[in-house]
Amino acid sequence: MPTRVMLMGLGPIGAGVARQLVARRNFKLVAAVDIDPAKVGRDLADIIDLAKRTRIKVGPDPVAAIRQTKPQVAVLCTSSSLKKVWPQIETVLKRRVPIVSTTEELSYPFLSNRALARKIDAAAKKAKVAVVGTGVNPGFAMDALPIALTAVCERVHAVRVERVQDARIRRLPFQKKIGSGLSVEEFGERVKAGTVRHVGLAESVSMIGDALGWKLERVTDEIQPMIAKGPVESRFLRVEAGRVCGITQDGVGYRDGKPAIVLHMEAYLGAPESYDSVQIEGSPPLFVKALGGYHGDVATTSITVNTIPKVLQAAPGLHTMRTLALPSFAGGR
Amino acid sequence: MPTRVMLMGLGPIGAGVARQLVARRNFKLVAAVDIDPAKVGRDLADIIDLAKRTRIKVGPDPVAAIRQTKPQVAVLCTSSSLKKVWPQIETVLKRRVPIVSTTEELSYPFLSNRALARKIDAAAKKAKVAVVGTGVNPGFAMDALPIALTAVCERVHAVRVERVQDARIRRLPFQKKIGSGLSVEEFGERVKAGTVRHVGLAESVSMIGDALGWKLERVTDEIQPMIAKGPVESRFLRVEAGRVCGITQDGVGYRDGKPAIVLHMEAYLGAPESYDSVQIEGSPPLFVKALGGYHGDVATTSITVNTIPKVLQAAPGLHTMRTLALPSFAGGR
Repeated sequence: MPTRVMLMGLGPIGAGVARQLVARRNFKLVAAVDIDPAKVGRDLADIIDLAKRTRIKVGPDPVAAIRQTKPQVAVLCTSSSLKKVWPQIETVLKRRVPIVSTTEELSYPFLSNRALARKIDAAAKKAKVAVVGTGVNPGFAMDALPIALTAVCERVHAVRVERVQDARIRRLPFQKKIGSGLSVEEFGERVKAGTVRHVGLAESVSMIGDALGWKLERVTDEIQPMIAKGPVESRFLRVEAGRVCGITQDGVGYRDGKPAIVLHMEAYLGAPESYDSVQIEGSPPLFVKALGGYHGDVATTSITVNTIPKVLQAAPGLHTMRTLALPSFAGGR
Repeated sequence: MPTRVMLMGLGPIGAGVARQLVARRNFKLVAAVDIDPAKVGRDLADIIDLAKRTRIKVGPDPVAAIRQTKPQVAVLCTSSSLKKVWPQIETVLKRRVPIVSTTEELSYPFLSNRALARKIDAAAKKAKVAVVGTGVNPGFAMDALPIALTAVCERVHAVRVERVQDARIRRLPFQKKIGSGLSVEEFGERVKAGTVRHVGLAESVSMIGDALGWKLERVTDEIQPMIAKGPVESRFLRVEAGRVCGITQDGVGYRDGKPAIVLHMEAYLGAPESYDSVQIEGSPPLFVKALGGYHGDVATTSITVNTIPKVLQAAPGLHTMRTLALPSFAGGR
């Protein structure tokens, strides 16, 4: 029997999750919820760009959707911010429905959102269901995967992860999110306002630190603009030389005064090579590289769907990718 | 408090595990057991080549060792064969001690040793402790890691894993195990006798197949000699042209008549590049390569020690690397 899923949030990631849930035979999307009045009341197919009607009408209210469709799990793709998502989590947990969320700050909330993490854990245990935050990053490329690689080491001195993406292949909202086309001044203002940044590096650093049993003195998260050396174009944008074509961002965990965990991201229009790499200084030393990298959107929507069976099998409470069983494709074509 | 460990089996892998347990501060080796009369009664330091005495006298009897030292976990490094190891597992489980074993056939015993797998699961549940078989291969490079990588895929059509090792850097018993120096005829006889082969490919194939939800029609495991094209030398051996310098071995899982899972190993003196790679045909396609590969002995001893905390946290019963929490370095220098 396919697993009955309710989806909350129909932005680009939610829409991708919805398309997978509709296409994959071991899942059955039974309800879709969004607060956007332009989406409510329409057939989901219109929102996620499917030719065939889904007969799922987008609703505004998760409580009504749960009552009417009895989902076995809820997938939340509503916001990066755990503070914003907490009321939704609380609502869903009160109805005893387990949760997989793409909320970046939920991936490892024990450093930046400790109080909320406790509340979620308590609410999940009370409801006797599990909750987890996942995605390709945070959730996999820069935390779970490097952690899994340390399993073959007898000593680990430092971990360096690089994620370099040519943003030309990504969707327009992503290209804008990384500041493509802005002046350096505008970029600085957006960084200050918090609208240009990748959310999750501090979470990934602390997940790795805890996995290794390291007490980190300090975790930093710093953003710099990447400046176009010449004009660069994507399907959507043209950026002139001297303007911003993307970001570099570094999450660093310090131990004994030294950077022991370095997570280095580059996402910009025109990066010559996209890749993900993990370098472990230790015994044995490791260098593992994914050529072409893990595609951002497809990888995030996939790991979200693939995590559903893991969260259904897990003990009640707040989980992370560290405590669930080994990640894997969930089967079903 | 460090975890109290009993070690059974002091061959090359067991000795490596012992050295790590002595060196790592969050473990305390409390007992060492071996059936070899040449080892029994001696200080462990003599057997594992340590300068400083360990004050652990190698004993012949795990039951006496458990009674005297009260270990929290037993590590078994005695044999590749589950049939041979089963009586040891039974003995240890009767004393309610959880087990991490390097027994290759225990890594995923549901295809080739189904009846024993059931017995072990039942005995472990009765004892309320967990049991797992692990190692770098099987246990990680050609199964758990490729499985974890599929987590970012929405579709998987085929999995191809390659493990290529220049055997010149490995110990002499390994070089002999892969047939280095034999004639082609001698190699064929050893393969028939079962003394020249890597144990675990069928286990890895079926672990991947089950993780993906695939029904495999057939699993094959075939060995070929690698013939030296010119003379090749290691620290221990010289192999003349025309003689065997190692093996290639392929584990293949067939689905719809096609090879859907291919695990390709090469281990021979003089391989130009050592590496491990995982290629996933699907969406998105993935290609992940560990440059230099995962060192066989250090990686196996490390993942064995690192799996101890995972097995202590796991629910009672027979586990595999698929069902334990995410593998990771266990902390402690």
